[in-house]
Amino acid sequence: MRNRVRLNDSLKDSLVQILGDRLDFSTGICERHGKGESHHPVMPPEAVAFVRSTEEVSAIMKLCYEHDCPVVPFGAGTSLEGHVAAVAGGLCIDLSEMGNILEVNDEDLDCRVEAGVTRKQINHHLRDMGLFFPIDPGADASLGGMAATRASGTNAVRYGTMRDNVLGLTVVLPDGEVIRTGGRARKSSAGYDLTRLMVGSEGTLGIITELQLRLYGIPEAISSAVCSFGNLEAAVDAVMLIVQTGIPVARIELLDDVQMDAVNRYSKLNYAVLPTLFFEFHGTPAGVAEQAEQVGEIIKDYGGGDFQWASEQEDRNKLWQARHDAYYASINLRSDCEGWPTDVCVPVSKLSECILETRKLIDEAELVAPIIGHVGDGNFHVLFIVDPENQNEMESAAHVNKAMVDMAIGFGGTCTGEHGIGMGKKKYLIKEHGDNAVAVMRKIKNALDPKGLLNPGKVVPEI
Amino acid sequence: MRNRVRLNDSLKDSLVQILGDRLDFSTGICERHGKGESHHPVMPPEAVAFVRSTEEVSAIMKLCYEHDCPVVPFGAGTSLEGHVAAVAGGLCIDLSEMGNILEVNDEDLDCRVEAGVTRKQINHHLRDMGLFFPIDPGADASLGGMAATRASGTNAVRYGTMRDNVLGLTVVLPDGEVIRTGGRARKSSAGYDLTRLMVGSEGTLGIITELQLRLYGIPEAISSAVCSFGNLEAAVDAVMLIVQTGIPVARIELLDDVQMDAVNRYSKLNYAVLPTLFFEFHGTPAGVAEQAEQVGEIIKDYGGGDFQWASEQEDRNKLWQARHDAYYASINLRSDCEGWPTDVCVPVSKLSECILETRKLIDEAELVAPIIGHVGDGNFHVLFIVDPENQNEMESAAHVNKAMVDMAIGFGGTCTGEHGIGMGKKKYLIKEHGDNAVAVMRKIKNALDPKGLLNPGKVVPEI
Repeated sequence: MRNRVRLNDSLKDSLVQILGDRLDFSTGICERHGKGESHHPVMPPEAVAFVRSTEEVSAIMKLCYEHDCPVVPFGAGTSLEGHVAAVAGGLCIDLSEMGNILEVNDEDLDCRVEAGVTRKQINHHLRDMGLFFPIDPGADASLGGMAATRASGTNAVRYGTMRDNVLGLTVVLPDGEVIRTGGRARKSSAGYDLTRLMVGSEGTLGIITELQLRLYGIPEAISSAVCSFGNLEAAVDAVMLIVQTGIPVARIELLDDVQMDAVNRYSKLNYAVLPTLFFEFHGTPAGVAEQAEQVGEIIKDYGGGDFQWASEQEDRNKLWQARHDAYYASINLRSDCEGWPTDVCVPVSKLSECILETRKLIDEAELVAPIIGHVGDGNFHVLFIVDPENQNEMESAAHVNKAMVDMAIGFGGTCTGEHGIGMGKKKYLIKEHGDNAVAVMRKIKNALDPKGLLNPGKVVPEI
Repeated sequence: MRNRVRLNDSLKDSLVQILGDRLDFSTGICERHGKGESHHPVMPPEAVAFVRSTEEVSAIMKLCYEHDCPVVPFGAGTSLEGHVAAVAGGLCIDLSEMGNILEVNDEDLDCRVEAGVTRKQINHHLRDMGLFFPIDPGADASLGGMAATRASGTNAVRYGTMRDNVLGLTVVLPDGEVIRTGGRARKSSAGYDLTRLMVGSEGTLGIITELQLRLYGIPEAISSAVCSFGNLEAAVDAVMLIVQTGIPVARIELLDDVQMDAVNRYSKLNYAVLPTLFFEFHGTPAGVAEQAEQVGEIIKDYGGGDFQWASEQEDRNKLWQARHDAYYASINLRSDCEGWPTDVCVPVSKLSECILETRKLIDEAELVAPIIGHVGDGNFHVLFIVDPENQNEMESAAHVNKAMVDMAIGFGGTCTGEHGIGMGKKKYLIKEHGDNAVAVMRKIKNALDPKGLLNPGKVVPEI
């Protein structure tokens, strides 16, 4: 355990001068900021700064740099691998009040937002302009946090992840200096790709305060469908063929029977309690019809049931809300339990083997753990529903988690497709990338944050 | 001018032990390796090492690190901004003999190749498997070099650039250590994005020796078309509307009247000498027909002539060969002259203004300089055809180049969409990204290459 850094009086006074009553020391606020949405223990900061501008973040970072005070950036608090835990104490910078949408350029399909804007907020703002931003982790996360964890979600199979959809960033560095990375051009070969370096760096290299994002026109036609299968293998095999055929499906989501049961109970629905695929097709009316027909043929070959269609927006919203609530639905499966979500991503050809083996491991360990997945990308999640007081259960979950990660890495995949490393997966980083590559990450961290102040204890394992 | 580092006898002996007669000191070979395909002066290395494996590159780098000998990586020698100039002498590592295609995973649409494999070579290999790799700079560049410069080309509007299509890399670091970045999963949130850091780093952070690439199925239907316009403005305005409408065209290329004249002469064709758009549509037969119809409507509104169709592969190849030969065709416009190609990329809404103003500047300066562009991305090129002995002409070209870059940056664009920084655009890097962001690039360079041995004098301007 690290020593926890407390804020000295001089730093406190200077911070109050900037923030006034937006510097909060209360236990409740600090505890709420020391934990994301998962099983990782609460590690509260010493205080929380509710910032309102890049200039404020810069001034605060300058002070913290001077006083060697650790800083943890905080968006909506929906991260899953202990990203916001203040393992070294210090200050939490909460960016949720930086909620301004600064510009929308409909002609160029891009926009500029402050880091605290959430994905639902931006899409609500864009809807009347016929535009949308596709990245949708289940939670209503902040866009700054989504960039920091390289988030993706259900649309990534068609639209990519935060990696692909952030055009540029405003970032406050550990010494308080401000940089702007990227630009509004669709592509550039001008220098090192600092945007992509910051995306996925989980607040360990800089604090993202603004984002330039790529937008998309809302497709002329959208159609969603649900289809259940007799067994998990058939469902996943159908997905593999759909992806390999190159049909440009916008969303392909798998929910296993355990998850469907949870969704039915939580969202008061009555889907069959069977492995189920959720689809969405985007395009022109003719294009959507063609995609649906191609997918329908493949599904039939794998014994999938008839599509249940949802073409009206209201029905589609209900369907996808059920999918996005999957995590909360799962936690509801057992009372007084917590969710321990984990995810891996593998080459699509290995998906079936990997999911089936994982399901077997879960069942052998007698754990309650639905599997859901953004299977079009080869990405799937296990949601362990665990009693944190039950040491056996926690160890079993850790064991299955490790086995699943080892298997994914063995297949050329990754220990996390979209949740990030945080604290929870640091131990797998070297296994995935090797000592030399992690040493390069450490050199970059030391070069940009020589005092180790930014989100200490995350991503890069200590030597 | 830097001091040129010569290879000392001890280093020479050790290199010969590894390479035998694949270490070449001849003037002809060294000069050929000291210049790309543009106006930048020849700066030959002291010797060229023709390497055949990652292990050889690693062993050579270890020696060069020990002896403080600068190293310039070399692929096909087709770069345009002086990337391969050995400004500090030392050793050139030529990777063109690393030409093995190591694996193709058709089920997962990816492959692994050595860095010397060229884009034509990989596509020739893939054709019978129904797959292709879409990134196509005009030249038959090596894939390692294409990754190093973050290349793109005509297909980028639909398929992205090297940034989007490199899944992982094997890289030899300045001290000879080897790292593998990325993996075979379609997405990952596991740690800093070293793949994207290396892509576009122009051989200044590491030497790329192998690449894992994303592949695509050859579309069921492909159709190309050519269409000319009465003036440049109408052609570019049509492009802007096509892009903004979100029609998923695979290629949209602009050739201005000067370029069409050059293409006609060089490729023995008889297109109208007018601003012309080259299109390609990829998809299902119905999808391609639908896209072509949507584009046709827009073109009609802007007074474009009838599409000239090329649906047969042979006709399409001829059409795109003419497009890819544009640079060589342009150089042929004047005898004893050299090409000075430059490129910028701007938000699509600014494309018309930027191209028209650039054309005006060229005409006012009385330069011979066709404009061509990957206009679907907002990216366009000016090919100055200049007499390097004529100082006035060189100064005029430099002046237009600077004005065009300033304009692009002023519009939120970039000083280079796909050619890279090399030596030629170093002076614009700070203007585009600011002092603080370039300082971060410098910190990364110093952290990874503290002796400054890798491709010195490129990308990051000295303090």
